[in-house]
Amino acid sequence: MMPYVNIRITKEGATPEQKALLIQGATQLLVDVLGKNPVTTVVVIDEVDIDNWGMGGETITAFRQKFLNK
Amino acid sequence: MMPYVNIRITKEGATPEQKALLIQGATQLLVDVLGKNPVTTVVVIDEVDIDNWGMGGETITAFRQKFLNK
Amino acid sequence: MMPYVNIRITKEGATPEQKALLIQGATQLLVDVLGKNPVTTVVVIDEVDIDNWGMGGETITAFRQKFLNK
Amino acid sequence: MMPYVNIRITKEGATPEQKALLIQGATQLLVDVLGKNPVTTVVVIDEVDIDNWGMGGETITAFRQKFLNK
Amino acid sequence: MMPYVNIRITKEGATPEQKALLIQGATQLLVDVLGKNPVTTVVVIDEVDIDNWGMGGETITAFRQKFLNK
Amino acid sequence: MMPYVNIRITKEGATPEQKALLIQGATQLLVDVLGKNPVTTVVVIDEVDIDNWGMGGETITAFRQKFLNK
Repeated sequence: MMPYVNIRITKEGATPEQKALLIQGATQLLVDVLGKNPVTTVVVIDEVDIDNWGMGGETITAFRQKFLNK
Repeated sequence: MMPYVNIRITKEGATPEQKALLIQGATQLLVDVLGKNPVTTVVVIDEVDIDNWGMGGETITAFRQKFLNK
Repeated sequence: MMPYVNIRITKEGATPEQKALLIQGATQLLVDVLGKNPVTTVVVIDEVDIDNWGMGGETITAFRQKFLNK
Repeated sequence: MMPYVNIRITKEGATPEQKALLIQGATQLLVDVLGKNPVTTVVVIDEVDIDNWGMGGETITAFRQKFLNK
Repeated sequence: MMPYVNIRITKEGATPEQKALLIQGATQLLVDVLGKNPVTTVVVIDEVDIDNWGMGGETITAFRQKFLNK
Repeated sequence: MMPYVNIRITKEGATPEQKALLIQGATQLLVDVLGKNPVTTVVVIDEVDIDNWGMGGETITAFRQKFLNK
């Protein structure tokens, strides 16, 4: 009942339409798999600056610069 | 000890005074109900864009537009 | 890149198969909508006791008891 | 609209009644300060083992042992 | 001031000593890099069941079974 | 496997270099203490406005103003 879904992505220009699709899809997923009530399902999308997101011990910013310089 | 409270609301112009009241109230709630030490209680408010918040499978933005068009 | 999805549901007997479907579906959603790499997509499911989940100012436990007593 | 409040406390025997008061109080706080709709306010309480909670660089477990040994 | 660090790991037998080292290390990191006050730094470790953690679209449980069967 | 670390700090001018050090340090900590794979460790830094962060029942903004006026 009343699931809460938090989707964290890097801030790279997701459009309002894409965000609406994420919200719609995540809500439908909870309906399909667990029979949750879509009306009371909450989805929150956090967009995180690529300087603030790390993977493999470095920021996404640094990761991409290395890739581009190759 | 040292409770951590995270309040997530849509970003719609909450004033610094309102945020201060949320922080004061949440801290006092932990004191009143559980006897927590207010000094070490942390409250963090996240304000989320209405394009990024979904309910009933759609964004708050879409939800309000439908309501206004009725 | 590397989205992180946190799904919080009440603890009411979701099976390992249902959890696997949630993880698969949330990952696919990020692929479909944003073209994210599924390999680096992380999904974490939190199951929360119904005494610890509130809606409308009361616990799910209390909410259900009222409903059953009607 | 539809605030989400996450209260994280150490797991030390909070009763169902205390949890209900936290949920009721947090919901009312959002009503009082921001005029939020209580029906769609979600509150989730996480209880964390004292081995898993740190302050001042040590676990609550260690912190208390030092205090008791003084 | 008062950083909050949340470390989420799969539940696979981390010992109290290891948890204490994570808390100590994360706190020291904030001191070293940002000059934060260790006294008011909070670290919370969440241990998540491997059925509830997904990567690459499948649970860690399934991921390991495939690996073992190879 | 695939730890997720979320570091929440007040937004007060942490530089990209400092953020890179936090990501590097947190990832290394998980390697050192738990033997986690650095490649799949995710670190996300949230920077929170000082009006939105409370301690001892008041915002960091208010806390600092009192201190400065003494």
